[in-house]
Amino acid sequence: MDFMDIAINLAKKAYKLKEIPVGALIIKENKIISKAYNTREHSQQAINHAEIIAIKKACKKLKSWRLNECEMYVTLEPCAMCAGAILNSRIKKVHIACLDKNHGAVVSKYNILTDGTLNHKSEIIVGEHEQEASMLLKNFFKEIRNR
Amino acid sequence: MDFMDIAINLAKKAYKLKEIPVGALIIKENKIISKAYNTREHSQQAINHAEIIAIKKACKKLKSWRLNECEMYVTLEPCAMCAGAILNSRIKKVHIACLDKNHGAVVSKYNILTDGTLNHKSEIIVGEHEQEASMLLKNFFKEIRNR
Repeated sequence: MDFMDIAINLAKKAYKLKEIPVGALIIKENKIISKAYNTREHSQQAINHAEIIAIKKACKKLKSWRLNECEMYVTLEPCAMCAGAILNSRIKKVHIACLDKNHGAVVSKYNILTDGTLNHKSEIIVGEHEQEASMLLKNFFKEIRNR
Repeated sequence: MDFMDIAINLAKKAYKLKEIPVGALIIKENKIISKAYNTREHSQQAINHAEIIAIKKACKKLKSWRLNECEMYVTLEPCAMCAGAILNSRIKKVHIACLDKNHGAVVSKYNILTDGTLNHKSEIIVGEHEQEASMLLKNFFKEIRNR
């Protein structure tokens, strides 16, 4: 089981709670520092996307707002808020399973992490376990429409 | 004392703590729902910008991630993370004292809140107490350079 498999399992936990299924984890030196999934509805917190919670936990664990030695694995392309948080925390590399054509702020709608004129850039890798992550989202929204 | 005066006073609290002086507050029906200032260094949390803390507190107080009846007053143009959080929380109107040419994601570098292709738009008002807010920031960075 690789890191993106673990991120997808986190997304599945969100799915079971009827949250949009997105999971994220942060590693440092090949070890997991933090794991999270989207809990916006349960927490009724607009900011509680998987990436934000993972960053919060990682900063707490490392006692630093600078995560420049860290990498993130996330099942869906981050939105503007989450891409901005990745930028602000200086995460060096982001692995994204599938893109979000409507809200993605890393590749699809904006290029916040590779802009080059902001105060940080992250390396981006797209497509690890793409099909599994996107099927999970497709099934989730299909279920919602059928309800 | 108007709402932006109060936001500037919050920024001054950050200044005293040697944090980048930015303050934010959220109102609903002309009443203050939440107040916050930047605490990134003290909390060692990359996400702890004034706007994020104000949104978190407002969601908690209103028991809802939807702040669509709310307005934000903020002393500096929000970065990508904070503009994205404003979008995600559906805040209807944002009052910005001064612009951030290098990192601002509302007017300067991106137009996240008025893009129109994302899932929300906010009304933007720029320039209330601009000079006071920008002087505070200028003095802060001047002090840092002199240290």
